[in-house]
Amino acid sequence: MEIKTLSIDWTPERLLILDQTQLPHHSEWIEMKDLETFITAIKKLSIRGAPLIGVASSLFLANLVQQWQGKRSVADLIEAAQKMRMARPTAVNLMVCIDRILRVISLHQKSDEKIELVLKQQVTNEAINIFQEDVQLCEHIAINGAKFFADGDSIVTHCNTGALATAGIGTALGVIKHVAKVEGKKIHVYVDETRPLLQGARLTAWELEKLEIPYTLVSDSMAAFLMKQGKIQKAIVGCDRIALNGDFANKIGTYSLAVNCNFHQIPFYVAGPYTTVDFECVSGAHIPIEERHSEEVHGVNLKDNRVLWAPKDAKVYNPSFDVTPAELVTAWILDRKVFDKNNISQLKDLR
Amino acid sequence: MEIKTLSIDWTPERLLILDQTQLPHHSEWIEMKDLETFITAIKKLSIRGAPLIGVASSLFLANLVQQWQGKRSVADLIEAAQKMRMARPTAVNLMVCIDRILRVISLHQKSDEKIELVLKQQVTNEAINIFQEDVQLCEHIAINGAKFFADGDSIVTHCNTGALATAGIGTALGVIKHVAKVEGKKIHVYVDETRPLLQGARLTAWELEKLEIPYTLVSDSMAAFLMKQGKIQKAIVGCDRIALNGDFANKIGTYSLAVNCNFHQIPFYVAGPYTTVDFECVSGAHIPIEERHSEEVHGVNLKDNRVLWAPKDAKVYNPSFDVTPAELVTAWILDRKVFDKNNISQLKDLR
Repeated sequence: MEIKTLSIDWTPERLLILDQTQLPHHSEWIEMKDLETFITAIKKLSIRGAPLIGVASSLFLANLVQQWQGKRSVADLIEAAQKMRMARPTAVNLMVCIDRILRVISLHQKSDEKIELVLKQQVTNEAINIFQEDVQLCEHIAINGAKFFADGDSIVTHCNTGALATAGIGTALGVIKHVAKVEGKKIHVYVDETRPLLQGARLTAWELEKLEIPYTLVSDSMAAFLMKQGKIQKAIVGCDRIALNGDFANKIGTYSLAVNCNFHQIPFYVAGPYTTVDFECVSGAHIPIEERHSEEVHGVNLKDNRVLWAPKDAKVYNPSFDVTPAELVTAWILDRKVFDKNNISQLKDLR
Repeated sequence: MEIKTLSIDWTPERLLILDQTQLPHHSEWIEMKDLETFITAIKKLSIRGAPLIGVASSLFLANLVQQWQGKRSVADLIEAAQKMRMARPTAVNLMVCIDRILRVISLHQKSDEKIELVLKQQVTNEAINIFQEDVQLCEHIAINGAKFFADGDSIVTHCNTGALATAGIGTALGVIKHVAKVEGKKIHVYVDETRPLLQGARLTAWELEKLEIPYTLVSDSMAAFLMKQGKIQKAIVGCDRIALNGDFANKIGTYSLAVNCNFHQIPFYVAGPYTTVDFECVSGAHIPIEERHSEEVHGVNLKDNRVLWAPKDAKVYNPSFDVTPAELVTAWILDRKVFDKNNISQLKDLR
């Protein structure tokens, strides 16, 4: 069995990931040879995207059971899963996926035993299920979201939410792909570059080029001026965690974009799989926001691309995510259902 | 006679400018040895800031009369002035200052004559007047604006509006300096990095370090999230052109910041000298917006600091400025007077 997508290449024996810090200029695949390597890849954003890190973590746990079966204890496997679970604090999909694997483990073996064949099979099956489900979730999101977009629309998006961020065609970018490629509507995409880590300029631009969907790259602060000029009709973004009241966390800059959409009366859509809903989280105020290293704001600090442009000791605030309140959202496009302000209170029923 | 500021060094014989594209890591002074060099320095933003390019252009014309007196015709001088006038289309100060020099020329000599000693003296005097006036304008703006800021305020600003952007202490940053250093109020400055050319990260951060005023550097899209968290009490920016109805052009991103201030009910101030008012311009719709090269958005393209991070042929929209409508402005802090929405209609009386 082999699973191969735009950004992961998996067999039960090993996981390769496309190093997203090197895109768009270099396509380098890295083997996740041990737990440390994998956690570092998540922390450095070599592998990223809320759905994808959940899926990849499940598949990597399947690699560990393969390597450790008959050799190491279930407790070691649980410990590895717990470490991976903490690698990025804001995106909930990682935690949801790992909890699914942990449930399988607890159903089949005690923690002081050596990993047995049956556990290996069960964990591997669950990881493959998680992968296949994510591919399907993306398809459903795309179909559900497409109706909001019309021929001739110019659509702004933020960060990267495509095939690099999920196991399938993506969330927000999956909707865009469906509208352009399946429905054949003529649309134009404005891509926020997404400082500080430039996922828009590096990854979304690269994906849209491959898809041959027309796009224009802009700095994040330009979107408002485009809106004022009537050049943007819709906005769609992904999400890293949705609270039960509809507040959601996403890449820093999403909130600013939502405020600007609100001011210009531009519909603002958020797309994500149900695995992004945190059923324990009543509102955005409870979502932990990861803060990252100041060097990301001091300049660019991508592999092969390091430039310091600020004074080197400049004090920096670098939240990786922000929270957009439900009141600024026109619709939540999920795989099973589309919510709006009238029925977002039913989000909890997806559980 | 010598004029020396943070960014220009002038004698009647020559003009040196501090190459602002190399800040904050290198302080390299460049001699403006001919008209071409000077116009290129403006276009490349080696010298920048709406007030400063007006002042520096006047002083550079004084250098030209010095070199050309008795040798070249007044027509050559007028042609040089006209070329400089077009170097950056949005900032009106450049045009206002050059028109003052052109008026002096037309008062003293016919265009087919060789430049005479008296014209040299008159142009030089006018250029020095323009310089000295700008220093004074900055002081008056600072005094007028200081009353809006209180002990404990955190203030967000965009782009660079300090001693690097004017002949004096600056406009918006001049107000901040006055509040912190003359009035001794404890304030904190949030500095938007100001993509794509990073005047905030490179220049404002550098100036605030020299001034020992506490600041935090953020990506442009983070300001909204700071506002939501109650971390910002006020915003102040400079301007490149103010229309008679109070609409104003400023560095791209200003409009997005103003919309966010409006949403969060944060006072939004604009500071500038009366030379930034365009008395021929009835509204922001008539302000020409300079669009610059796509490579500025494809990556960073500063001297010694060149990185391409987007796909190299990515289509880009790169307006250098945007227009903020009067309705989003709390007060216009000018040198002679502070305007608000109730009396902005009297702006025309400054003429």
